[in-house]
Amino acid sequence: MFATKGIQVIGIENNKERAEQIKNGICPFHDPSLQSVLVEAIKVGNFQVKNSVKGINDNIDIIFIAVGTPNTIENSVDYSQIYGALEEVCNLNLREKTIIMRSTMPPKTTVDIVIPFLEYRTSLKCGQDFYLAVCPERILEGHAIEELHNLPEIIGGINKISNDIASSIFKIINPQKEIMHTSPSGAELAKLFTNIYRYISFALSNEFAIWAEIYGLDAAEIIKIANYNYSRSNIPIPGFVGGPCLSKDGTFLDNNTTFASIVSTAWKLNESIPQHIVNNINKVVGNLFNKKIAVLGLSYKAGSDDLRQSPSVKLVEILKSKGAKVLVHDPHVKGTLSVKEVLNSPDVVIIATNHKEFSECHKLILNSGCKLVYDVWSMFDKDDFPNSRYIKFGQGIC
Amino acid sequence: MFATKGIQVIGIENNKERAEQIKNGICPFHDPSLQSVLVEAIKVGNFQVKNSVKGINDNIDIIFIAVGTPNTIENSVDYSQIYGALEEVCNLNLREKTIIMRSTMPPKTTVDIVIPFLEYRTSLKCGQDFYLAVCPERILEGHAIEELHNLPEIIGGINKISNDIASSIFKIINPQKEIMHTSPSGAELAKLFTNIYRYISFALSNEFAIWAEIYGLDAAEIIKIANYNYSRSNIPIPGFVGGPCLSKDGTFLDNNTTFASIVSTAWKLNESIPQHIVNNINKVVGNLFNKKIAVLGLSYKAGSDDLRQSPSVKLVEILKSKGAKVLVHDPHVKGTLSVKEVLNSPDVVIIATNHKEFSECHKLILNSGCKLVYDVWSMFDKDDFPNSRYIKFGQGIC
Repeated sequence: MFATKGIQVIGIENNKERAEQIKNGICPFHDPSLQSVLVEAIKVGNFQVKNSVKGINDNIDIIFIAVGTPNTIENSVDYSQIYGALEEVCNLNLREKTIIMRSTMPPKTTVDIVIPFLEYRTSLKCGQDFYLAVCPERILEGHAIEELHNLPEIIGGINKISNDIASSIFKIINPQKEIMHTSPSGAELAKLFTNIYRYISFALSNEFAIWAEIYGLDAAEIIKIANYNYSRSNIPIPGFVGGPCLSKDGTFLDNNTTFASIVSTAWKLNESIPQHIVNNINKVVGNLFNKKIAVLGLSYKAGSDDLRQSPSVKLVEILKSKGAKVLVHDPHVKGTLSVKEVLNSPDVVIIATNHKEFSECHKLILNSGCKLVYDVWSMFDKDDFPNSRYIKFGQGIC
Repeated sequence: MFATKGIQVIGIENNKERAEQIKNGICPFHDPSLQSVLVEAIKVGNFQVKNSVKGINDNIDIIFIAVGTPNTIENSVDYSQIYGALEEVCNLNLREKTIIMRSTMPPKTTVDIVIPFLEYRTSLKCGQDFYLAVCPERILEGHAIEELHNLPEIIGGINKISNDIASSIFKIINPQKEIMHTSPSGAELAKLFTNIYRYISFALSNEFAIWAEIYGLDAAEIIKIANYNYSRSNIPIPGFVGGPCLSKDGTFLDNNTTFASIVSTAWKLNESIPQHIVNNINKVVGNLFNKKIAVLGLSYKAGSDDLRQSPSVKLVEILKSKGAKVLVHDPHVKGTLSVKEVLNSPDVVIIATNHKEFSECHKLILNSGCKLVYDVWSMFDKDDFPNSRYIKFGQGIC
């Protein structure tokens, strides 16, 4: 976006294959509007991609750090990409430059790690010799361009000049962009609050699904009724909750307590939904060993090809561990089978991701000869499958 | 409201003192617009109040059951008012009448208890001889009249004729009223979903407050920033969460599980906030024995006189158990002291309810000579009290 606004932009990507893709105008993940902006940026000639900062001359003003902060296998924060980026950045002369931290980070990461690291390596003073602001990314995956333009920007500068520089940079994207100022730690925490709030609302919807199942009722239907023109209810529809942000951002705070929190309880619940669904299917079709199971959707959310922390991936693993023959189709995920291949006389069809493409698969599922359609996302209705048993997640089996 | 629309209404209230109040046009709780509608209803002559159904002739069409469903001291459902109301109702000839269940109830209460009870006592058949619909109350306390007019009505009739009768009754209040139909159990569950969703969002805000305190940050400020023009965040401001609905409705579902749920975790958190605040105050002022503590606000929420499950009541109890001298002022609660009495040289001032009247008490608090102002609701700011220590709930003590 900066490149299309006349700014010279250099992207640093140390994965060489991915860097080549981007250089060639291919967005490495599914986001149609980002894809077309990438092509435009390359066409106007303002956008280069490099594997490191080496050879970049010092004539740059702003450095964005937007690396990932995943969890380690023990669910603690993996700071390696942050440290790697800081190492890389220190190869430049930072004097008079401004560093913008775009990554999602636990509160105090910037003041406790980032600034001490940069000052130690460069012998420069943050706030005097170089400037720094925490400006966390808050876009919805798949809507980067539109949201980068429209969303208010949270700017947690180390001082006034850092705030002013960061604000002016974001106003290049949209001169009307609203700016909210806070401290660096405040900006880090605000991002986490936002994602955790969303995560908990999804988890609560899934808890409602479990209770509706206990009572033999239909959670999705009742949630729609509860929400309708009632300003105090905005309950999501039950379904899988995962992905690279929501499912780990809560641990950034939760790891600070030894007691059960709402976040840890919600995490336990969301992470258990794939197993819960396997248990439910098991009750209906018996032992899953050697059963042929078609899974529609592998990515963690509709319209995405992102498999990171996808509950559907977990579902497939559990099914395989039970000895089932699992066939997976996802229109957005390369290497998966075609819809016709997976719907060739399966015992069970599971709609595991709410890709809109699946609503067009109705006839294929209907005629697949399956005994059970399990709908994680309430995409269909009982009457759609008169030849099979139809169960949705969040609907009691009466 | 029905009475002001030309309908003959008889209210049955077995508390004689309260019945007398209502007869005399005095609303027994604080709700200004309900108060004026009550006066109007009595003036037009359509509204009577009786202590029982005895002597009511059979010429009535609709019976609303709107009794409370509190929890027992063991946190299980206290059905005694429901049973009491059903007993009372069975003194009437129910043939051709319609019963509308307005109370909040655990799912299946109507099909498992209410209908069997009525059929057993009357030897009539529900759905044939008399009609029944579950139409749960969803108004915000203090906004009864406006919301009874505007909110969509959830109607869970036992059959079509019950649905039709219930719909036509509610359309007397507002012919444009939107109607959502579901089953009786669906209607019961929809009400609980609504209240639990709200309760969890308040609890999460309080969990954010605790984390902000850990990091020495200001939760209320950061929540405002996170919410600002960001459609995916609607996080409430931290504060006490209680009252007769939100804090017990979750147990109606949660009592069905032996595991920690989001609801039980949230309940534990909200219920612990008064003790957490006492602990925080203790850290600043030392042992509370014989300390003079002014508590502003006793009701569970702003503008209300309702003390049921009020966290402020719990706060006062804890403070008293520590040996503190506690002086309470609440502009809406009779029998509390005046604001001047409680602000006569206290050691600590606690703003415990967010009554708007308290923003006018700034000068009195400022000049009270207190050592500490503890603001549960982020109503004030540090700069407002230059002579005292000022701490808000959800702000770290650095």
